[in-house]
Order: sequence, then structure tokens, then C-alpha cells
Amino acid sequence: MQLGLIGLGKMGGNMRERIRRAGHTVIGYDRNPDVSDVASLAELVDKLEGPRVVWVMVPAGAATQSTVDELKDLLSEGDIVVDGGNSRWTDDEKHAEELRAKGIGFVDCGVSGGVWGLENGYALMVGGDDEHVARVKPVFDALKPEGDFGYVHAGKVGAGHFSKMVHNGIEYAMMQAYAEGWELLEAADSVTDVREVFRSWQQGTVIRSWLLDLAVNALDDDEHLEKLRGFAADSGEGRWTVEAAIDNAVPLPAITASLFARFASRQDDSPQMKMIAALRNQFGGHAVESAK
Amino acid sequence: MQLGLIGLGKMGGNMRERIRRAGHTVIGYDRNPDVSDVASLAELVDKLEGPRVVWVMVPAGAATQSTVDELKDLLSEGDIVVDGGNSRWTDDEKHAEELRAKGIGFVDCGVSGGVWGLENGYALMVGGDDEHVARVKPVFDALKPEGDFGYVHAGKVGAGHFSKMVHNGIEYAMMQAYAEGWELLEAADSVTDVREVFRSWQQGTVIRSWLLDLAVNALDDDEHLEKLRGFAADSGEGRWTVEAAIDNAVPLPAITASLFARFASRQDDSPQMKMIAALRNQFGGHAVESAK
Amino acid sequence: MQLGLIGLGKMGGNMRERIRRAGHTVIGYDRNPDVSDVASLAELVDKLEGPRVVWVMVPAGAATQSTVDELKDLLSEGDIVVDGGNSRWTDDEKHAEELRAKGIGFVDCGVSGGVWGLENGYALMVGGDDEHVARVKPVFDALKPEGDFGYVHAGKVGAGHFSKMVHNGIEYAMMQAYAEGWELLEAADSVTDVREVFRSWQQGTVIRSWLLDLAVNALDDDEHLEKLRGFAADSGEGRWTVEAAIDNAVPLPAITASLFARFASRQDDSPQMKMIAALRNQFGGHAVESAK
Amino acid sequence: MQLGLIGLGKMGGNMRERIRRAGHTVIGYDRNPDVSDVASLAELVDKLEGPRVVWVMVPAGAATQSTVDELKDLLSEGDIVVDGGNSRWTDDEKHAEELRAKGIGFVDCGVSGGVWGLENGYALMVGGDDEHVARVKPVFDALKPEGDFGYVHAGKVGAGHFSKMVHNGIEYAMMQAYAEGWELLEAADSVTDVREVFRSWQQGTVIRSWLLDLAVNALDDDEHLEKLRGFAADSGEGRWTVEAAIDNAVPLPAITASLFARFASRQDDSPQMKMIAALRNQFGGHAVESAK
Repeated sequence: MQLGLIGLGKMGGNMRERIRRAGHTVIGYDRNPDVSDVASLAELVDKLEGPRVVWVMVPAGAATQSTVDELKDLLSEGDIVVDGGNSRWTDDEKHAEELRAKGIGFVDCGVSGGVWGLENGYALMVGGDDEHVARVKPVFDALKPEGDFGYVHAGKVGAGHFSKMVHNGIEYAMMQAYAEGWELLEAADSVTDVREVFRSWQQGTVIRSWLLDLAVNALDDDEHLEKLRGFAADSGEGRWTVEAAIDNAVPLPAITASLFARFASRQDDSPQMKMIAALRNQFGGHAVESAK
Repeated sequence: MQLGLIGLGKMGGNMRERIRRAGHTVIGYDRNPDVSDVASLAELVDKLEGPRVVWVMVPAGAATQSTVDELKDLLSEGDIVVDGGNSRWTDDEKHAEELRAKGIGFVDCGVSGGVWGLENGYALMVGGDDEHVARVKPVFDALKPEGDFGYVHAGKVGAGHFSKMVHNGIEYAMMQAYAEGWELLEAADSVTDVREVFRSWQQGTVIRSWLLDLAVNALDDDEHLEKLRGFAADSGEGRWTVEAAIDNAVPLPAITASLFARFASRQDDSPQMKMIAALRNQFGGHAVESAK
Repeated sequence: MQLGLIGLGKMGGNMRERIRRAGHTVIGYDRNPDVSDVASLAELVDKLEGPRVVWVMVPAGAATQSTVDELKDLLSEGDIVVDGGNSRWTDDEKHAEELRAKGIGFVDCGVSGGVWGLENGYALMVGGDDEHVARVKPVFDALKPEGDFGYVHAGKVGAGHFSKMVHNGIEYAMMQAYAEGWELLEAADSVTDVREVFRSWQQGTVIRSWLLDLAVNALDDDEHLEKLRGFAADSGEGRWTVEAAIDNAVPLPAITASLFARFASRQDDSPQMKMIAALRNQFGGHAVESAK
Repeated sequence: MQLGLIGLGKMGGNMRERIRRAGHTVIGYDRNPDVSDVASLAELVDKLEGPRVVWVMVPAGAATQSTVDELKDLLSEGDIVVDGGNSRWTDDEKHAEELRAKGIGFVDCGVSGGVWGLENGYALMVGGDDEHVARVKPVFDALKPEGDFGYVHAGKVGAGHFSKMVHNGIEYAMMQAYAEGWELLEAADSVTDVREVFRSWQQGTVIRSWLLDLAVNALDDDEHLEKLRGFAADSGEGRWTVEAAIDNAVPLPAITASLFARFASRQDDSPQMKMIAALRNQFGGHAVESAK
């Protein structure tokens, strides 16, 4: 089938390649002319035969919103827009409604796989009406991994991004789990080769996983991670997971602890710990450390 | 080689079988005569040719201590005791010292694998002197999974149990990660088939793992886990992990949250939340719920 | 001065009384005719001489929004609306803008004091333009406690409710602190009279506070809180505090733990702990408890 | 009455003064001859008329243990030792038993009050037999604050230090509560004068407390705490509180979060966040920051 693909960055570029390898036609558009197949969104829409499927793979928020706005004007009744970016699930119903007014379908698709997706396939979590999802199915089949898993139609519009968001929340806590364990092993006296302990865990243990394999890769590059700073960004999904939990009154202690650890990692000095130091000094005359 | 194996329960029984399949001779002792190969510890020691290797696979704490005490009297210089149970790593040095006085070696071995170990092999984390560990190596080779991983000599006496303890701490937080994500998906409106979302995650995602596969198995048995009560025991290693973190001033927020979630799961009613209710009532006249 | 006061529930009724005691004229309106001074909002506005000050003391959300909407139509240029309810700070700027279009001023005021406020005074945290705040000052003076503290003009519109929201977030964690300590003391063997320990802490300790005094009151009513269920509602501000922290990338581990403890207290059975139990059963054959 | 007092540091020196002001005789011993009343422990014991009461006020752990050991040899049947230091409650029964063998009584006393104790009095939490506690009561009465509170006989030996330990655990979480709230207010845009918000909270609010008063003092010294580094020590009791909670399977999420925040505050760079950064880089090609 034919697919229009908007956004050819690290993710989108590899996805174009994987879909093409499956025998489909992909016309890609990117603001960067070096990677783009067409000069404009209008040209992209023009080149696709109707009814069209256009996959949006641009940053969540303003970029996705303005792309949806433009597509609403350019596309025709019966066309379908797929948002494969990291949009907040609450944006999906809004986008679906805006497009529905013109008879354009909407499907949201959470994509996992990172830099490994081109070879291994991408895990896809999809939300939308059965009819729209069915139309995009050949593309989903091209992107997903070989085998029985890696694809789910999770529910109505929004369910795809919601599922992907929860996936990322779980990912935060799993990474935190390995990270805490690694720090404790490094801190202990008795264990002389922490990297080999991690390596050994890759078979036969309860905690074997792909993330563990990656941890071993990382330790093979840099045994004590001395080249890195303990600084971790967060990309939205972790925050939204906690917000969704608050909306639903679901306690998420481990995932939230993982998010907060990232916040703290980005502070040069902790304001709240200044207050702790100040209070200890006030009541106990405890020594404080001066700011440098 | 010959091995004496003490404790033939769920773990020990399967381990005897796996070691025998590898062509070694195992003489097993258990208090339960139905499964025991010999009538007493003394008979077990008698039947082994020196220098002996005796593997202790009994509950941590008092049972392990009394077994070590008996073996100290029964064994001879040059023999080796392996503690493959879930002992606290702080007990290992004590046991090693007690046995060293009589010239008996000591090796600690954390074993992971559960009910799947007989077929898949057991992951082994070992602590002790090189010379002692080398003597037991054929048994370790029999027990470990096929392949490159699943075995590590982690360091001196205690390092094996310490590594296994941290493994279990990580396991707590990974399980909590999936559990939190599952609860949130079940609570949300948009996702109509949570089980299929979990199933799809088994390929191509960042969070694929053996625990995830088990979660899918569990949901296949009971889609919404309605047959279970939200009640989780804890077996010592999670507690010791947090204590070791405190000793080393290492923050473990996700692992500790996971441990506390288990504590809370076992309370019929939460005393601390009674106090919260009482305080809200005191200052705000907020309604409280009476105990039934 | 004259004040219109809308909402004469537990809080509003007592506030009317305290403002009157200070010599001001209060015309109160409530949907409940038994407590209302006038039959309608229109009548309330009619009876006040311009420029008017109208204080809204109704539930946050829909009730406050519809009251602001009605007042926008009824009031005149130069009048002022005070929102003294528990509105989310993000609603304040919206309300201010809606009213500004008609030349009506807006002040937000977070109020603390609960059932004790009538006698002790209410702590007030105020946001808005200097000019508007100055116009309401006599009412603030009537409501606040005797003494130097209990009133602050915290900043522009929204700052009052934001400050009150953070106050409540702190309150959550302080209550949780006492509650955790109480549960631990009750669980320990050595301490035979926990209530007397709490009572003694009211002087000379680092942790003496008004909340501690209330805890002692509660324990005097019911030494082991056996009449209560460990069930705690939450009223919005705790959730908003965590959301504001996420917006600002500020880690709030203790406040968030306190919010989650309340969420968990309201679950008959914990879905996430069902998943933990299911996983333990899968890998270890660990016993599970069946749902009743 | 007569009292022997060992340890005349910041706490002990002030306590000697307060007890003397109440009309009692205090013979103080310290290793520092400038503050000591006698040249040796032996001389201190010599100068007291039997039956003696000797109060130990030295650092917990080795210093307290060696002092108890010496006193066991120097004192006589019927004498009493009071441990007023910050000993772990688990040491108390051990010390009591060692002294009991020679007919010497033992009382443990947790002391709160810091640098304010000389003027305001010290809060005292006491453990021990009724008979021994009664013998020391005049000293307790001299030390405690004026008024009805500030003293409790909490239970048998160990109950005093256990109660003081829980007091400190609560203190950790209360400090953390104010610190988190302060950081959030400082981070928010709308609140222009955070110090005045804190000041206003000292009356009429639910969160008024002595610690809040101290926070205002600290902010008066240094409005944004710019002179301080966010670095907080911990002195044992917080750790022991969490360990006691683990022993009793009591969840302590807020207190533990407060302890971990202190651990993290003392790390120049976070090892666990290096691992998070490494994993993000592995699966997503996310940028990492290099160690400086």
C-alpha cells in the first residue's frame, strides 16, 4: 500500500526504511530537505492516491498539533491520519474530533523500539475505530516484529498512546530497579566484580530482561560508568503516567519514585535539602555546609 | 563427582534431579524419610568419600545454623560446606569462620530459578575462596543453565548471598513496576483489553522480560486476577536489601516502596490511616468511617 | 464595611459570624433558605451598595464556576469578587480574566482553620492586585487570628490558592509523619503507653505542633483508634500539589507518598498486589490467598 | 539530690547547668579537663554518696559501651546508671543485663531539646523499672519543661530510646514536608514572597509548629537559603526507625523517603542515575552528559 510519512528523524527515518523493505510505497516529508521525498506537505498529499493514509511522526505538542491542523485542510473525506508520535493520550480525542468534522479518520499509535526498531521491529499499541485500524493494518504488520507479539489494538482513540505511556512508566521503574541494585552492589565490600554479577543474571534468573542485556552492554563499554554524569532527562510519558494515576486514584509509588529520582538528578543543588540543613542548624546547632 | 545434599524440598529435590542428570552422584538427606536417601546426617557424611562436598539447602536462619553446627562436628579437614539456601549474607562469614576452625571450607551460593530451574537451569551467584569454589565447580556447571550466563563467582564469602539478595530486591521493584502499570491500565477507560496490551509487550518493547511473560501467563489463567487476593508475602531478601542500603547510605526508593507495598497488603486495616482519619476529623470535622 | 457572602455551609456560616463580630455588615446567600439572608444572588447584589465586595465560599469546580458566571452578569464595574473556596490555582487567572472584561476585580483567598476558625481566626493566603486586595482588607482583618501572623498577600492572582494548596500538601505529609510514628510505636513491644508518649511530646520536643495536640485529643477519645476505619479521603489540594510539582520538575517524595497512602486506604483490595501475588505464584509456586 | 553526669558537651554541659539551677548537686566528668569537675570516672564515683545515680551523656555506640563497662566495675549494688545519649534501643536491654548482674539498675532516657533545652527544658522519654525511674525522678523534673508535658515513662528498658527514635523519625518527615513545600513555592511563578507565606502560616493554619517557627527564623537569616548547600547529615535514629519498621512489617513511606533524600543529598554524583543515563543511551540513543 501507499503511505505518507511526516517526520523523518531518528525514528521516522528508520520506520520509512522498514516499511519500504516490506514492499510498501512510502512518501516521506521532513522539514529537512536532505531527507525529505517531497518539498511540502501539500505535495505529499498530492502524490498519494485516495483514500490516503498519512502517518505523523513529529514531536508531541505544538508540532503535532500544527501538523494535524494542516492535514485537516489538505486531506479529504475518507482519508486517515495516524499519530505515531509521543502525544499525550488526552490530545488524541481532540485531534480525532477535529478531523472527524471533515470525515477524516484518526488512529493513535504508540511506538516502542528505539534505535533497535529497524532490525528488530517496533512494538505498536494502537487506538481507534476498527474500520480505521484495519485500513492501516498492512503498515502495522510491516513495522511490528516477526512473531506473535508486538502489536495490539488496545481500544478506542487514545488507548494506543495511553498504553504506550504506561509502558514507559513501567520502563522508568524497571530502569530504576536495576540502577538501585547496581549502586548497592557497587557500594558493598564483598562483591568484587559487579559487572560479572550483572552479566550472569542474563540467564536463569527471575530478573532477566532486555533492559538487563542493555545494562551489561553499557557496563562492557564503561565498567563503573565513570564516563557518565548521573543526569537523566524525562520525556513526558513518565509525568503523564503519574498524572493519570492521580486522576484515577491509583497509587504508583515505584514509578513515581523513579520520576522524582530523575528530577533530582538534574538539580545542581537541592533547594529542599537546603531547608533541611537550615532546620537542623536551627534546632540542633548542627553544622551546615556553605554553598560554594 | 559425589555430592551430599541436605534439604530435599521444592528446590532441593529438583536440584538433586538436575545434578544426577549431569552424571554426578548425589546422596540426599531430608527429615522426611519418604524423599531422603539416608537416615541421618551422620549416615550421609559416612557414605561420602573424602574430601567431601556437602550442599545445605534448608531454610535460612535457625535450620541452616543447626545444620552447619552439626556438620562442623561430622565433617573433616578438607571438606567443604556449600550454603545454597537464602541465608542473610551477614551469616556467611560467621559460618565460614566456625568451619574454618576445623579446616572445613565454606562457599555461599545464591540460587535463582524457582520451579522452572529443573528444566531451564538455576542461576548461581557464588562467594568464597577460589580454591573452594573450584572444588564445587562441577556441581555448579550441572545446575546452571546451558549457555554463557547464569553463573558468577561474585567475590569472597558472602558475595554470593549478597548478590542474590540484590537480585531479589531488583525483582521486587520490577514486579511492582508491572503491577502498578497493570492497575493503571485496568483503571483507565480507554483501554478495553489490558491482557492483550500486556501480551503485545512481549516483543519489540523496552520492557520485555521473563517476568512479563509470567504476567501474561497469569492473566491467561485469570484475566482480571479476580481469583486472587491482593496479599503478598515477603521472604527476607527484600528487607535485607533495604537494610544493606541503609548501612551503605544508598537511597533505594523504588525497591523500598515495593517492600512497603507488600507490608501494607497484609494489613486488614491500616493503623496509620486510622490516625490520618482521626486527624482530619479533629481539624476539619471531616467524616470518618467507623470500624465494622 | 459591607460584604456579600455566598455559601453558608460549615465554613461560610462561621465566617459570616466572625466577620459580623468584627462590626461589619454581612449579607449571606445560600441555596438553603434556612440559613440564607436573601432569596437569590440577584437580591444579594441588589442589597449591597456599590462598589461591592462579594465573597464566594462554595465548592471548587462547577459550583464556583457557575457562581462566577452569574456574578459576572449581576455585578458592575468596580465591584470585586473574592474566591475563598478551595479552587485550583489554575482556575483563578481564568476567573479573573472573565470578570476583568466587565471591569470587575478578582481576588483569590486560600482559607485554613476548619472548625476552629470561628474562635481562633482563619489563616488567609491572598492573591491579586494590590488595589483589589486593599479593598477587601477590612474583611481579611476580621477573619484572621489575633496577632502578627495568619495573613499574607502572596502575589498576583492565583498565588493565594497556590499557597493554600502547598499548605495542604505539607499538611498531608505532616499527618503521615505522625501516623507512621504512631503505627510503629503501637507495633513495638517495649512501649507500653503510646498515648502518653504522644502526650509528652507536646512540650520541649522538635515535633511539637498543633497537629500533635489534635492527635492527643483523638487518642484521648479512643486510645487505639479502634472505632475508626483506616480510610482517608483526599480533597483535591494534595493531588494538585503533586501535579504542580511535576509541572515544575520538583521531587516531592514525602508528600506524594502521603497522597498515595490515602488512595490505597480506600481500596478494598489492591489490584497491583494481586499482580504481585500472581507473579510470585508463577515463578516460585508461592502460595496465594484466594479472593473471598 | 546528687547526680554524677558523664559527658559535658553541647548537650551535657547545658543539662548540668539546668539541673544545678533546680538546686541539685551535679558532679560532672568529661575527658576535657577544662569542663570537668573531677579528674576521672573513679573520682566521680568516689565523690558521690551511695546509692548513686550516674547519668551517661556520651556518643552512642563505642563510647557509651565503654563507659557502661567502666561503671559496671566502679559502681556498687543499688546504684543506677541512666543512659541519656542517643543509643539504639537494642543496646539498652544488653546494658541493663550487664549491670543487673552486679545489682546495678539501668534506665534509658531519650532527650530532645537541642540548643534550646537549657532555657525551655528538655523533653524526656524514659524506659526502665518503676523503682529505678522513681529514684531518678527529681533529675527528670529538673530537666523537663515547665508545664504538664515533656516527660513520659514510656515502658520497660529500651522504651525511652525507642520513643525518642520514633520522635526523630517523625521529625525527619516533618522537616521534609516543609522543605518540599518550600521548594515548590520557590519554583512557582505566582508566589512572589515565599518567606512571607511561611511567616503567615505561624497562626491559624493546620501546619503551625515549632519547626515552622524555626523555618521562618532561617529564612529571616537568608531569604533563599543561598548561603547553604543542600547537604544533610543523618544521625542514626532515622536509619534505626526504618529498620524497626522493617522488623515490624510497618510501611513507613514518608519517613523513609526523608531518610533517602538525605542520603542522596550527600552524593556528589548519583551512581544509580548514571545507570539510568546509560540505559537511556543504550535503547534510545538519548544524549548523555559526560562526567566532568
